Amino acid sequence: MSSGKILVAQGGGPTAVINQSLVGVVLEARRHLGIQRVYGARHGVRGIVNEDFVDLTQETSHNLELVANTPAAALGSTRDKPDLAYCQEMFKVLQAHRIEHFFNIGGNDSSDTVRIVAEEAQKAGYPLRCIHIPKTIDNDLVLNDHTPGFPSAARFVAQAFAGANLDNAALPGVYIGVVMGRHAGFLTAAAALGKKFPDDGPHLIYVPERVFEIERFLADVKATMDRYGRCVVAVSEGIHDASGTPILAKLAKDLERDAHGNVQLSGSGALADLLCEEIKAKLKIKRVRGDTFGYLQRSFVGCVSDVDQREAREVGEKAVQYAMWGSSNGSVAIRRTGFYSADFELLPLEAVAGKTRTMEDEFLSASGTDVTDAFRLYLRPLLGSGLPDAFRLRPNPVAKVLKA
Amino acid sequence: MSSGKILVAQGGGPTAVINQSLVGVVLEARRHLGIQRVYGARHGVRGIVNEDFVDLTQETSHNLELVANTPAAALGSTRDKPDLAYCQEMFKVLQAHRIEHFFNIGGNDSSDTVRIVAEEAQKAGYPLRCIHIPKTIDNDLVLNDHTPGFPSAARFVAQAFAGANLDNAALPGVYIGVVMGRHAGFLTAAAALGKKFPDDGPHLIYVPERVFEIERFLADVKATMDRYGRCVVAVSEGIHDASGTPILAKLAKDLERDAHGNVQLSGSGALADLLCEEIKAKLKIKRVRGDTFGYLQRSFVGCVSDVDQREAREVGEKAVQYAMWGSSNGSVAIRRTGFYSADFELLPLEAVAGKTRTMEDEFLSASGTDVTDAFRLYLRPLLGSGLPDAFRLRPNPVAKVLKA
Repeated sequence: MSSGKILVAQGGGPTAVINQSLVGVVLEARRHLGIQRVYGARHGVRGIVNEDFVDLTQETSHNLELVANTPAAALGSTRDKPDLAYCQEMFKVLQAHRIEHFFNIGGNDSSDTVRIVAEEAQKAGYPLRCIHIPKTIDNDLVLNDHTPGFPSAARFVAQAFAGANLDNAALPGVYIGVVMGRHAGFLTAAAALGKKFPDDGPHLIYVPERVFEIERFLADVKATMDRYGRCVVAVSEGIHDASGTPILAKLAKDLERDAHGNVQLSGSGALADLLCEEIKAKLKIKRVRGDTFGYLQRSFVGCVSDVDQREAREVGEKAVQYAMWGSSNGSVAIRRTGFYSADFELLPLEAVAGKTRTMEDEFLSASGTDVTDAFRLYLRPLLGSGLPDAFRLRPNPVAKVLKA
Repeated sequence: MSSGKILVAQGGGPTAVINQSLVGVVLEARRHLGIQRVYGARHGVRGIVNEDFVDLTQETSHNLELVANTPAAALGSTRDKPDLAYCQEMFKVLQAHRIEHFFNIGGNDSSDTVRIVAEEAQKAGYPLRCIHIPKTIDNDLVLNDHTPGFPSAARFVAQAFAGANLDNAALPGVYIGVVMGRHAGFLTAAAALGKKFPDDGPHLIYVPERVFEIERFLADVKATMDRYGRCVVAVSEGIHDASGTPILAKLAKDLERDAHGNVQLSGSGALADLLCEEIKAKLKIKRVRGDTFGYLQRSFVGCVSDVDQREAREVGEKAVQYAMWGSSNGSVAIRRTGFYSADFELLPLEAVAGKTRTMEDEFLSASGTDVTDAFRLYLRPLLGSGLPDAFRLRPNPVAKVLKA
């Protein structure tokens, strides 16, 4: 007899819309007669091995709608990256609770976890349907037009650079904004969408898809200062030298590493400070300021793309529909069908799991320090409606009297 | 014969609403028959000594309305702090251009400049009316209930901490957010308005009005971690030890100083990084993250208080009205008249100029790490309408099966 139980979990870094996907799963699941209980795992996969579940069937639909509009994983998240043994533990718990459908909301690591758990269930002959629901501000899932969470973070970055550009125009100098992104530069490149007038910043954009050379960087900054008397720079935290060594790693003393063995890049202002010091020392420019957008770009309340909200809701809904009406495991993906419209498809888990997408060459200019119009056309509709716009006074100079 | 010429300038750090005050001056001035020309100085007082003026009478009212909604000084700003000789140069230019009214939008340094220029005009027997229009995110002008620009920056800080708290709840650890404010802690204290549920962060708030002791800080963080399993901290960049030495100055190698002789506190992530290192080293907590809000808090487009917008507009309008209908120089100030309503008054320049307000004792809790309800009551109406609200799932735990 069917237990009618499903489980949903959230993993990785929070986004502005990750709870839209959670609520999409819960509300859609509650429509289906075959589903009796919707469980949520507290703090992702760790909540599964610890049997730390909440019953989302007992939550009001009204509060679910409010939670959907709240950023950061409402169930809690985790940075655990399960290996085979960990996934076997997870499967044991899923089996013990007679879970029939497992939904995991997260990035490429989360999709890999889903893949392994699905294999364990298959080996054991246990009928478990496993669906991965995409979520990452990095936009680095292969075969996805884009991923939920990215558009809202991109909107924050675009708005932040629009403001930083105005600030820098009022008080000229060099401004460096460091944006999240280890391998994929999509979020940093979004800074370009904050630009309106031809002389607006960001004047220079550095992404991990291109090798970062400090001498070249200094020459770029100098040329921009010479031309505009000011310079706004967007830099990805993941910039690295030709050997692949992060620029941050060349400087920092104590390097923290995560469960994946990677150097911790976020949560420190070190990279911005280093680049500012280089400019001050080598170019003798006085006013040089650096900001690290840090956790603001993924968690700030009150900066969200309405397109992102509705798509994040729909990938959750579609996940349940694929589980209930279909017969395969898989990863839900957004497919672009117009300018702008989107549809959804279920990709094989193996096609997505553990793979990393980076920016396509057509999105980056030949100079290596700007995006192309193809990228602007790609990103603009995702940022949603009501994007703030910057205006300036038109020039009406007054003739000098004393120094005429 | 009257020239009918007025001049307006913007000084100091940009805010989200500084252009509302500019446009308030321009549009109100254009209503008065006695005013023929409204000049704007490019980059504040520097534009005055350089005779770098634009004619705002030739700008459309439609574009002025759009510029009013754009953050950061549309005329450009400056960090110059004029001494007597500089002010004498300014006066020479004002006289040469037959300026009859001088409006300077800025903080306490700007009000001091207005005071000195007014004295020079008086000594020379030249009829120059001088009005200071308040603007500072620091909220540190004496005798002002609050200053335009502060409410919008406070809103950014409150929304940022609301989001950082959600992020920290999803992925627990220590999070430190460093907020602008050298002597006045108002903006840092605004972090408390991002708090909703009793266990929400910020759990600890450190302002320059209280001496910062690193051992006490570490004990506070440890106690919070023990109680909640996580800790969100708001820290003012201006925190200092008992001798008044900035905590940042105790660490940094190369200290940049501004025209006022102060150590440059903003534009670097060093303070957050130092505090994080202390926590990691002394408390052995693994997940410790620090963000420096930097220039985002004063220039981000798309985070503004509507109360701040309209008050900033009105102080500009009132400045022109005081100049045209009154007979004194002065500094426009906001006076609170209800919950919530405000009126304006013209204070003597000497009463405001060069003085610094800090947080009143009644706004700070006895613990020294929190604000009082009096502060919440003071700040909440200023943040304006439509403040985002955070919601959470209600607890409905599921019984364990394997570890029952």
